[in-house]
Amino acid sequence: MEKYDKKNPTSYAIGTTLAIEALLRKGEYVKKLYVSVKQNRDETYQKLMSLAKLNNVSVIENNQKIFSSLSGKDNVMFIAEFTKFSSSIDIKGNHVVLVNPSNMGNLGTIMRSSAAFGISFLAIISPGADAFDPKVIRSSMGAIFSLPFAYFPSFEEYAKQAGERHYYPFMLQSSTDLRSIKKEKPYSLVFGNEATGLDDSYLKIGTPVKIPQSSMVDSLNLDNAVSIGIYSFLD
Amino acid sequence: MEKYDKKNPTSYAIGTTLAIEALLRKGEYVKKLYVSVKQNRDETYQKLMSLAKLNNVSVIENNQKIFSSLSGKDNVMFIAEFTKFSSSIDIKGNHVVLVNPSNMGNLGTIMRSSAAFGISFLAIISPGADAFDPKVIRSSMGAIFSLPFAYFPSFEEYAKQAGERHYYPFMLQSSTDLRSIKKEKPYSLVFGNEATGLDDSYLKIGTPVKIPQSSMVDSLNLDNAVSIGIYSFLD
Repeated sequence: MEKYDKKNPTSYAIGTTLAIEALLRKGEYVKKLYVSVKQNRDETYQKLMSLAKLNNVSVIENNQKIFSSLSGKDNVMFIAEFTKFSSSIDIKGNHVVLVNPSNMGNLGTIMRSSAAFGISFLAIISPGADAFDPKVIRSSMGAIFSLPFAYFPSFEEYAKQAGERHYYPFMLQSSTDLRSIKKEKPYSLVFGNEATGLDDSYLKIGTPVKIPQSSMVDSLNLDNAVSIGIYSFLD
Repeated sequence: MEKYDKKNPTSYAIGTTLAIEALLRKGEYVKKLYVSVKQNRDETYQKLMSLAKLNNVSVIENNQKIFSSLSGKDNVMFIAEFTKFSSSIDIKGNHVVLVNPSNMGNLGTIMRSSAAFGISFLAIISPGADAFDPKVIRSSMGAIFSLPFAYFPSFEEYAKQAGERHYYPFMLQSSTDLRSIKKEKPYSLVFGNEATGLDDSYLKIGTPVKIPQSSMVDSLNLDNAVSIGIYSFLD
């Protein structure tokens, strides 16, 4: 039984769209392409075969077990198996920094929004959700293959490598309205864990800001807060 | 076995926080409060007992089955059973309109963001995800009990009842950047289904707008797009 395991060096892009994204953006890391016996020899099939050939990927058409093992769904036609990768930090670009994110769906959605808005690097401060878990890959809609990201053992370690930049920690403890601040580049937008947010030590880093909100709810969902943050920093 | 059923007139706020929100904001609709045998007679218990008494809610302390039936988790201590409610439309306030939303997590998160930013009414155009499904209630973090909402059979029917207002359909087919438009009140921010968006007929309604985004991804996640939309319309 093939199962995703955080400790293994490989993961899986499950489904046609994700397999195509993996082959297009990170083809050099894709090792195997599994094709379901139910897949017709149509245009989609030809497209994936071309991409596989281009990247010297082994095509495996007789392992139906991996489909039931990795996916509960009957309509998955392709699975790309790839070696986990990591990206180097882009010291000139704008970053999103997630301190101990715990929800896999949020992490994937944040990758999607970050890619949509031209963020150049995502830093994840450990411990945090495993970016290569197929659940994250699915909720990223493939953005995991285009958005550079890496893990860091601490915020300090990230800051040491990140080059000179402006930090904006998003925290409810701040009394500075996001809409009122001067937004300077390159920037790092810093967000805390879903349940606990950022601790008070981040009040001393850069310009802490708060997304204005009513007292009716405790806070926004993390991925929504990150999307608003990135949007508000667009030119 | 008690199970949530879309066709039944009752639903459940599962967990201490949600049960408190239901009792605080929609106490008149809560019929029964189930207490787990594992719950201590502590301050939280006293608080819920007071709220139950205030609202003439029956307290049931000997039905442990409902906990295993409605929740897989071992740590759920309270479940509030309530009659489904609906709200009348607020013709003077600002609205979010979801046309055929299909994802329950998104619907709940959109309720949370809408409440956080002072939206006064959420319109859901049928068919759409069932707002009273416990999955939606959970992802709303209780906002379902404070944010007025109702279903409408069509956008036209909603518009007929909504009073004079400014419509802003969010759609990738628009070439108008969200940041460049004049934002007029009262407004309705209109969003399409997760997979299909709004169809071209909405290009003729009000001021269609597009959230600027790179070509790296197809679109934003629906709840993220809605949060950005609402945020961009804040004073």
